[in-house]
Amino acid sequence: MLIGGIEAGGTKFVYGVANENGDILERLICPTEKPEITLKTVYDYFASKNISSLGIGSFGPIDLNKLSDTYGYITTTPKPYWQNTNLVGAFSKLNIPIAFDTDVNGAALAESIWGASAGLKNSVYITVGTGIGGGIISEGNIVHGMLHPEIGHMLIRIHAEDDFEGVCPFHKDCLEGMASGPSFNKRWSLRGENQELPENHKAWDFEAYYLAQALVNIILTLMPEKIILGGGIMNEKHLFPKIRACVVSLLSGYLNSEYILNEIDSYIVEPKLGNNAGLLGAISLGKNIL
Amino acid sequence: MLIGGIEAGGTKFVYGVANENGDILERLICPTEKPEITLKTVYDYFASKNISSLGIGSFGPIDLNKLSDTYGYITTTPKPYWQNTNLVGAFSKLNIPIAFDTDVNGAALAESIWGASAGLKNSVYITVGTGIGGGIISEGNIVHGMLHPEIGHMLIRIHAEDDFEGVCPFHKDCLEGMASGPSFNKRWSLRGENQELPENHKAWDFEAYYLAQALVNIILTLMPEKIILGGGIMNEKHLFPKIRACVVSLLSGYLNSEYILNEIDSYIVEPKLGNNAGLLGAISLGKNIL
Repeated sequence: MLIGGIEAGGTKFVYGVANENGDILERLICPTEKPEITLKTVYDYFASKNISSLGIGSFGPIDLNKLSDTYGYITTTPKPYWQNTNLVGAFSKLNIPIAFDTDVNGAALAESIWGASAGLKNSVYITVGTGIGGGIISEGNIVHGMLHPEIGHMLIRIHAEDDFEGVCPFHKDCLEGMASGPSFNKRWSLRGENQELPENHKAWDFEAYYLAQALVNIILTLMPEKIILGGGIMNEKHLFPKIRACVVSLLSGYLNSEYILNEIDSYIVEPKLGNNAGLLGAISLGKNIL
Repeated sequence: MLIGGIEAGGTKFVYGVANENGDILERLICPTEKPEITLKTVYDYFASKNISSLGIGSFGPIDLNKLSDTYGYITTTPKPYWQNTNLVGAFSKLNIPIAFDTDVNGAALAESIWGASAGLKNSVYITVGTGIGGGIISEGNIVHGMLHPEIGHMLIRIHAEDDFEGVCPFHKDCLEGMASGPSFNKRWSLRGENQELPENHKAWDFEAYYLAQALVNIILTLMPEKIILGGGIMNEKHLFPKIRACVVSLLSGYLNSEYILNEIDSYIVEPKLGNNAGLLGAISLGKNIL
């Protein structure tokens, strides 16, 4: 059985087919041009494949409400030509089940099937880059609620030594405003610092402090069995021990959990799916509706 | 069909039977004496009833891990005689399915079946009293994760005018440390203020600010369709509009959701089940495993 997947990104579409075990059999890339061009290229590909289902993990904002007239659409994106684009509808003629979700929900699901949280019913995947986003698997289900998680905008305490005002256009100093890539770059370039900051620079203490607070609040809300941190900023691997230490410190011994007390190194971890995370995310969504 | 329920509290046990519609047919109360006395009283009652299942909503801490040797136990409570008490085991001779959970998870479930969040798959019930606890229904399931939510210990920003250090023995100034009943009483009695504080006292602004922050972080994580606030402190009904206004203000227009923009009065609400919430919580747990 073949499953199709589309990682719909703002600069490129990655698509292909895999078997049920997540073995990718074909993987293609095309640039994100106008929808009529890109979606035709991708449609034509899948029309020639005998896939049982299709998963789409998309950049946003997207409409995930199945009762909505614009379910399956990319909605108010600043990306030229892509506002109000019916992504799911472009593939309806395939006459197969189509799953549609955020890219980060796809990544969270794929990691929980084939990756770092494989076999666990409760896990969280967080990407820290241009934005901060999270996908949550709780009791075996992707959490949507009335929309989808927006953990990037959580409220955090500001570090006593940090006088940066933050870059979030809505909240200034929410998590994304203080710990995203653009926040990081603006804060330190404003101060005339080289952006290749050494590992002992306080920039990383601030970063770890903000991310750790979000993790603590997520732990206390969802009690996940594993937290996976990905995205560009997390390529700074020395952040992991800093974040782990800060989580343990902020919890102050409250949670008498072996995961946290004795296994923090395997509790807060890197993703396992690497460069294929996006495509496997889409494929896991496709697998999930079969 | 009859369902049995036990609300196991530190001062009294409330127990009885209901039908599947949550109509309570019998409701009894006995004081929480030594386990061998209280549990025998309750066991003898149910042994004479033809119930199909039994739900127990208990004070904590309790062991909810079904793989654990002490699943179904009240564990390290300071309550005399009740440490390491096998609550579920005391009813095993009934030979019926027994559901066991926290009292607040039971209340969250009951509200989602018969109460303020009836029919919704995503809701949160928070009790604000001696402690602050939360029960979460996400995608139709009670959220346990590796334990159960402990939202009372979330990290919050301290109000600029509040110099109270907080009462949490672990974190000092977490949510429970700054907004629970004991925190409230200690802060204002230290200041020589009468505990009957007028509605325009800044005490309520602090309280609303702290609770609203927790709600905002919960909204951004779980996107619930309804938030229910109960517990002793929420009997101060004037807190509801203050909390709603503060949630809207803290979100700063970020979430383009009708629930929050236009329906905040029916989004953050009082419980509906009143004095029967605890018993109906237990009964809903019992119904849930049938």
